[in-house]
Amino acid sequence: MYYLGIDLGGTNIAVGIVDEKGKILNTKSVPTKAQREDKEIIKDMADTCLSLLKEENLSLDDVEAVGVGSPGSIDSKNGVVVYANNLNMEKSKVGPMLSELLGGKKVYLDNDANVAAYGEYYINGDNSESFVFITLGTGVGGGVIINGNIYRGFNGAGGELGHIIINMDGEQCTCGNKGCWEAYASVTALVAQTKRAMENNPDSMMIKFAEEKGVVNGRTAFECAKKGDKAAEEVVKAYQNYIAAGLINILNIFQPQKILVGGGISKEGEYLLGPVRDIVYKGDYNKYMQKAVIETATLFNDAGIIGAAMLAKENL
Amino acid sequence: MYYLGIDLGGTNIAVGIVDEKGKILNTKSVPTKAQREDKEIIKDMADTCLSLLKEENLSLDDVEAVGVGSPGSIDSKNGVVVYANNLNMEKSKVGPMLSELLGGKKVYLDNDANVAAYGEYYINGDNSESFVFITLGTGVGGGVIINGNIYRGFNGAGGELGHIIINMDGEQCTCGNKGCWEAYASVTALVAQTKRAMENNPDSMMIKFAEEKGVVNGRTAFECAKKGDKAAEEVVKAYQNYIAAGLINILNIFQPQKILVGGGISKEGEYLLGPVRDIVYKGDYNKYMQKAVIETATLFNDAGIIGAAMLAKENL
Repeated sequence: MYYLGIDLGGTNIAVGIVDEKGKILNTKSVPTKAQREDKEIIKDMADTCLSLLKEENLSLDDVEAVGVGSPGSIDSKNGVVVYANNLNMEKSKVGPMLSELLGGKKVYLDNDANVAAYGEYYINGDNSESFVFITLGTGVGGGVIINGNIYRGFNGAGGELGHIIINMDGEQCTCGNKGCWEAYASVTALVAQTKRAMENNPDSMMIKFAEEKGVVNGRTAFECAKKGDKAAEEVVKAYQNYIAAGLINILNIFQPQKILVGGGISKEGEYLLGPVRDIVYKGDYNKYMQKAVIETATLFNDAGIIGAAMLAKENL
Repeated sequence: MYYLGIDLGGTNIAVGIVDEKGKILNTKSVPTKAQREDKEIIKDMADTCLSLLKEENLSLDDVEAVGVGSPGSIDSKNGVVVYANNLNMEKSKVGPMLSELLGGKKVYLDNDANVAAYGEYYINGDNSESFVFITLGTGVGGGVIINGNIYRGFNGAGGELGHIIINMDGEQCTCGNKGCWEAYASVTALVAQTKRAMENNPDSMMIKFAEEKGVVNGRTAFECAKKGDKAAEEVVKAYQNYIAAGLINILNIFQPQKILVGGGISKEGEYLLGPVRDIVYKGDYNKYMQKAVIETATLFNDAGIIGAAMLAKENL
């Protein structure tokens, strides 16, 4: 038997057929066109599921349950998107409506960051009794898994790790507060930090590098630092310190058995994470007990699909 | 039947007889003399228990189990104080040794902050599915209770909420890091902030007030602010912002159903907490779901005794 995992994003709806062990059989993606009415988006989610099943010579009879990861505030008990800014959804009954279009299959809905965390936990979590996944992207997202269950808080809105204030009165965050981790450790923030360094260092290699690529992005500072550019090295070093500050907080709060760091920038691997790990272990309040394992994540875009499918499995 | 709760501190050993509902029958306190060998301290813990029982015309036959809250890194599974800086203890088998002196009664040992959090949860927690207690004192301590259980992390060292970094590169913390919540929101920090304001405002009412009292303490700024002293008002306002920054983090991470703020300074009640609550709710990332309840704690020094006793009960 199989599970359908749906990663509902502001840009694309990505659907996957996933087996019982969390292995993806095949995926398919269509544009979300996020400003449409919710029922049109939900119809496309269902149609994409059905056409993907057909491509694999499968039918709904081969599907046990369906999982969906969605941005926004989610009422996972009732399958409702309470509010999602970038989806034009408010009190949308995504779970029940999708279930109706998919022959009454059980649909499990959760927040996209939680779902991705669950995917990484399922595949790479080593059954840790406590596990934290963070993703460094446009923002900083996160998810906390305790004893195999997503930690949500009493109202379902917990685990907003990107909005831990690490520098009060510091950089403005999109959430309205100042100094959130996201305002320093997201790739958006890294790009801003890179641009600032380029302005202040007109001789930096980063300027020519960005001109050639036609863009300043998350790789600009990393690529130039690897080639020995001092200004780029300083950007990378500061960025590592910002990531570390948030991870020290996560250690001192959760002391999780394992932390995985994901998002495109995590493809920098140990060049990014090695120095971060050193700073974090040094700043860990715990000096006498075993240390949390800190590694880069591996699933990238598949985390949402796998996590949604396996959450559907676990919640059946 | 009764339970013995022991609050082992750097200054005093406080013992209480507690009934099954968490009500204290009587307490007794002796100096810890912390630099002694562990077995001498443990002998005094046992003797204090026995003499308190005798005072109440009770014996060990009336005791179901014993709970102990201790500072430091604790291995609660084996009843061992792994390391406690202010107790001169290292790998001290407090649990087993105390059990032997108390007729083989089961002894349950945990970290003092966790134990106090459990006491407040037991009495004032309303069976919340998630609950956070913080105590503002010499440092900032905290404890997290999820589904009725203390959250410890995989190594037992979790829940160090005072060491959440809220202002990286800010005030030096005793832990070695910069900008910990404790370095801003502890009473120690408040006193430093008060002294700084007194230096910068030689006309402030705080100077005469402190002279009369012979000391600058946590009440100096609060008392003078209540009388309309501008410099004192600014100290209180800044201190409330510091407390709020940490509480916003706790909300965004845990979204606990209830937060209790304890420590002597919490006796300022709504004068302290009212403005803090406003700042925290405004900074809460969650805008659509129910809000955490934030109140002052009520048990003060009894929290450790009650928490230790009730943890012993729950762990039997």
